[in-house]
Amino acid sequence: MISAAIVGASGYSGIELIRILSTHPDVQIRNAVAGKSAGEPVESLYPDLAERVHLVLEPLDQERLKGVDVAFLALPSGESMTMAPDMLKTAGRVIDLSGDFRLKSADLYQEFYGRPHTAPDLLGEAVYGLPELNRELISSAGFVSNPGCYPTSALLALLPALSHRVVDPRTIVINSLSGTSGAGRSSSVALSFTEVNENARAYRVGTHQHTPEMESVVAAASGQEVRLTFTPHLIPISRGIFSTITAQLAETASREELLELYRTHYSREPYVRVVEGVPEIRNVRQTNFCDIGLTVEERTGRLLLFSTLDNMVKGAAGQAVQNMNIMFGFPEERSLG
Amino acid sequence: MISAAIVGASGYSGIELIRILSTHPDVQIRNAVAGKSAGEPVESLYPDLAERVHLVLEPLDQERLKGVDVAFLALPSGESMTMAPDMLKTAGRVIDLSGDFRLKSADLYQEFYGRPHTAPDLLGEAVYGLPELNRELISSAGFVSNPGCYPTSALLALLPALSHRVVDPRTIVINSLSGTSGAGRSSSVALSFTEVNENARAYRVGTHQHTPEMESVVAAASGQEVRLTFTPHLIPISRGIFSTITAQLAETASREELLELYRTHYSREPYVRVVEGVPEIRNVRQTNFCDIGLTVEERTGRLLLFSTLDNMVKGAAGQAVQNMNIMFGFPEERSLG
Amino acid sequence: MISAAIVGASGYSGIELIRILSTHPDVQIRNAVAGKSAGEPVESLYPDLAERVHLVLEPLDQERLKGVDVAFLALPSGESMTMAPDMLKTAGRVIDLSGDFRLKSADLYQEFYGRPHTAPDLLGEAVYGLPELNRELISSAGFVSNPGCYPTSALLALLPALSHRVVDPRTIVINSLSGTSGAGRSSSVALSFTEVNENARAYRVGTHQHTPEMESVVAAASGQEVRLTFTPHLIPISRGIFSTITAQLAETASREELLELYRTHYSREPYVRVVEGVPEIRNVRQTNFCDIGLTVEERTGRLLLFSTLDNMVKGAAGQAVQNMNIMFGFPEERSLG
Amino acid sequence: MISAAIVGASGYSGIELIRILSTHPDVQIRNAVAGKSAGEPVESLYPDLAERVHLVLEPLDQERLKGVDVAFLALPSGESMTMAPDMLKTAGRVIDLSGDFRLKSADLYQEFYGRPHTAPDLLGEAVYGLPELNRELISSAGFVSNPGCYPTSALLALLPALSHRVVDPRTIVINSLSGTSGAGRSSSVALSFTEVNENARAYRVGTHQHTPEMESVVAAASGQEVRLTFTPHLIPISRGIFSTITAQLAETASREELLELYRTHYSREPYVRVVEGVPEIRNVRQTNFCDIGLTVEERTGRLLLFSTLDNMVKGAAGQAVQNMNIMFGFPEERSLG
Repeated sequence: MISAAIVGASGYSGIELIRILSTHPDVQIRNAVAGKSAGEPVESLYPDLAERVHLVLEPLDQERLKGVDVAFLALPSGESMTMAPDMLKTAGRVIDLSGDFRLKSADLYQEFYGRPHTAPDLLGEAVYGLPELNRELISSAGFVSNPGCYPTSALLALLPALSHRVVDPRTIVINSLSGTSGAGRSSSVALSFTEVNENARAYRVGTHQHTPEMESVVAAASGQEVRLTFTPHLIPISRGIFSTITAQLAETASREELLELYRTHYSREPYVRVVEGVPEIRNVRQTNFCDIGLTVEERTGRLLLFSTLDNMVKGAAGQAVQNMNIMFGFPEERSLG
Repeated sequence: MISAAIVGASGYSGIELIRILSTHPDVQIRNAVAGKSAGEPVESLYPDLAERVHLVLEPLDQERLKGVDVAFLALPSGESMTMAPDMLKTAGRVIDLSGDFRLKSADLYQEFYGRPHTAPDLLGEAVYGLPELNRELISSAGFVSNPGCYPTSALLALLPALSHRVVDPRTIVINSLSGTSGAGRSSSVALSFTEVNENARAYRVGTHQHTPEMESVVAAASGQEVRLTFTPHLIPISRGIFSTITAQLAETASREELLELYRTHYSREPYVRVVEGVPEIRNVRQTNFCDIGLTVEERTGRLLLFSTLDNMVKGAAGQAVQNMNIMFGFPEERSLG
Repeated sequence: MISAAIVGASGYSGIELIRILSTHPDVQIRNAVAGKSAGEPVESLYPDLAERVHLVLEPLDQERLKGVDVAFLALPSGESMTMAPDMLKTAGRVIDLSGDFRLKSADLYQEFYGRPHTAPDLLGEAVYGLPELNRELISSAGFVSNPGCYPTSALLALLPALSHRVVDPRTIVINSLSGTSGAGRSSSVALSFTEVNENARAYRVGTHQHTPEMESVVAAASGQEVRLTFTPHLIPISRGIFSTITAQLAETASREELLELYRTHYSREPYVRVVEGVPEIRNVRQTNFCDIGLTVEERTGRLLLFSTLDNMVKGAAGQAVQNMNIMFGFPEERSLG
Repeated sequence: MISAAIVGASGYSGIELIRILSTHPDVQIRNAVAGKSAGEPVESLYPDLAERVHLVLEPLDQERLKGVDVAFLALPSGESMTMAPDMLKTAGRVIDLSGDFRLKSADLYQEFYGRPHTAPDLLGEAVYGLPELNRELISSAGFVSNPGCYPTSALLALLPALSHRVVDPRTIVINSLSGTSGAGRSSSVALSFTEVNENARAYRVGTHQHTPEMESVVAAASGQEVRLTFTPHLIPISRGIFSTITAQLAETASREELLELYRTHYSREPYVRVVEGVPEIRNVRQTNFCDIGLTVEERTGRLLLFSTLDNMVKGAAGQAVQNMNIMFGFPEERSLG
């Protein structure tokens, strides 16, 4: 039995961590930190947890966190990096769910996050927590940076094609659809029901901070510098991401060959399912699965990839727990359904 | 051609007034007042109006409003009453869309709106702008208080039964479902898409400010003091109200008799349709109609009434324009579709 | 370890049973019967189950069902009663999720279901499977009739008030809101997204088959014949029921007294939560909980009850598994989260 | 005043034609043909039209249609082509809203529509009714084929760039999101609320019949054969299309230059708005506008185009009426808001 702290326990990612970890037989949630709501039981903010989870939110206090085996930082980008240096001393291991440690370059961080990085020394230390790519590194890591929801979706779809040189990485175009929970527990007119319902729109076109995150992994996997186009869209659903990716085939290949290649690539992965047709968000809702489908468009010589996941689970808290299971040697699927 | 001012032009009711009045051949919108957004063209806030409406929002300035033929106050309750005394001097006629002048008693206002009334002398002056009830009074009024969305829905359903003594008014139970636009252009977590979608809940149970508004009209129509139960619910739609009303029949009556009574009662009303079955919100969406259906439940001796309208049109801006048409002698349906 | 058969495995209730039972450590799903889809793996109909559940749908064949410890009939009303007599011989115990055995009178069945009952002899045998009311009877039953979704919601809210004579049962008015999954896996224009979205409507007004089901339980609990008004509404959500119930208080009582009474009444129930405020559908989504809230309206002398549950879980498959756990002596919460 | 016939009056496109034409001062709807519902008033199918439109649906009978000035064929693809030859003799002019006459090649039709074309001689006669491209031809046409909803959205976004050789047409990738009404008034499980809500999915990947429709117009505009990738997605909204298009720039250009080029290109078009930022579906809902936005992604050298319209209006009935106005010399915006 290990002890866990969740810092940022009142946001959607934090509460999802609580939902998952509260059923984990090897973990005891010792600290649920939420500054603004300190003193309140979690169920006063999330009544679905009444009679299921008995936790009182507490203020941030490194003293109280001391000796905890694992700390999850479920904080907004910008806040995590101010806290990470202390947390790395206080906690046995740290899993950061923000975007603060996903890029390896402080300059790129400044460019896409719009602020200087305050802990650039730690950028090299954080292991990028995509189990399907970095399971070995994660298993021995003290500091894991949990991938973004969009990158998890796009990279799991792209990695087999890239590592087998099936597509030309310079032609990658990624269109993603996301639900509103990805924006966090937010009070903005733009995320109000009245303005989201019966609507759809692209946002942060050409400037989304997940773009360089994807590019750096794609570059590593393909062995060449890559600039890709990523366009996120907001659609009226609460949870879920659907990504449609096109790329020019490097050489002719049939759908059957590529399906076989993908199935082989992911044959031992517990949370990637290569599906026969086109995946749908509802099939992965509330699960840690990423479902992937593909088609070869002979008319254009392009590969079309489709990928779907639940942004709160495989795109955030579920993947964080999967990483924790790997780090502590627990069965990887424990408490993940 | 008359001139109109819309005070509170950037909220949902204000902008709906602009949408409707911009197609009215007898009205020119002279002033669109929105303090916080003064200087901006309306289309910067509501891009659907681009190339359709050419108005620049202006600050509140009684000088600029002087001599306007009609002023619409599309302000939150509490703000209207501070502005109404001045506006009544500045503008030829005033139509208030807030709740500030719907009750006749300052004490009731204090009880249900939670603040003292600052212009109690004007409470007696405002005509309650339900055309189906007060068309005569409205036609000669200088100051009209536009009814609430819920009361319009419930009262149009109840008035025929009450005025013909068909039901016992002490047994009235009103359950209403509303979309989110009724809460205005709002930035609260409780109205965010993530928390409204796939959800339903009752709110302001037993304390909603529309309760005394309904009671006072029911009392006048039935000739007796009445306390009724009104429970509003928020459901995941943007626009629309559906009300279900039960009341004990005063004496036996068949569905056919009552349908006939309702049809006769509303035979000359342009915006009330008595339907054969149960009305649905989608049939009145974006229209000024209130659709009413009814059933007699013989097993229990109860009358069941169903009423539906668009809260932004018949429940707010559409009814306000209907009132304006009556006040100025324009055809009542002009610009209302 | 017991063996289970699910007859009607391809409908929403059947598949929800599979989802729940597939995680039950004491149950093995031996037969998943779905005539029209026989031969297909369940994941071809419900791809969310891929790599989680390995079952092939089979045709109905009493031979293959022989000796099964428990059979769930997840069939439409009308079909269950033709199959129940055989199933009661074939299977150790039977839990019927249809409406066919919820009423005790074949005449009432004919009146509300619109067809003659074909197994009237069995009406008296079936135990009404509301654990909070009939746990003792269920524990020794061979044949359980699982309650309807609306009745579960309304009765759990009403029972404490009725059994303590707090309200006048002749004044009960029930308004319920439901999502679309309650209508089953259906291909009708009326349940298409285009016609349900941005809409709300009442349906089967005064004639819904759940009305006599509620009346008979209310009559038993209150010791008097009762006719109540129940009006179901369809709102644009997939899952969930929200019920708002009004009834005249028999004598003055405060909200605090009644909350206390409710909390005491349900203090040992694992799946009823008495909440401080108004419950919301999203708090019970995908759970077996029924959340109940209440208010006393002093102005009218009425009790207002609010009740919410997930129609597929506590309103169907979850409650069926809860009943199975009781019948076989398993811990009541096993596999129910 | 001209007379109009709507053949296929009970589908979503037909009824939208009725909604629009019923307010047109120069048009009288003489025939509303709907075989299956002949004899019923339109309001029995679409109660929103009660007291607004007084039409009785009639069976198909060429005798009754004789001499009508314009006939709209609002029929499914496959049915229109069997009727068009007769209609062209019976009616003064014909506007076909199906896909049957959008392609110029019977072979392509066979390939993408999956059936042989039964009136191939007429393929060359039909003018492709995109006013922004073919206004002159439309004005003198006797037979107009109304464009598909997706092609209207994509082509209006692409045409300025193509006609000015701004992009390499071989690199075009089109991703479109659509609401459910595009599939027509349908009773399929796949379009039921339960399965569409909280979901998103791509469909007809690589095989959608609108692909060759777009390709042929793009080829004509760019002067070269083109194969493009078009992927439609279904999202949980009732109405609206949002298209995101990427293409490699042929040479460097700035966002400002291209915005200027687009604004100039469409400066006289009443129904195309070039917007400053990213367009949103809600801004064009219930209107005949197509809103277009664009961005130049310098990192990748790509142009990103965004286009949005209401599939029932500019994507179907609205554009058909716009074509009719052009054909008969009425002001182009008449009755289109």
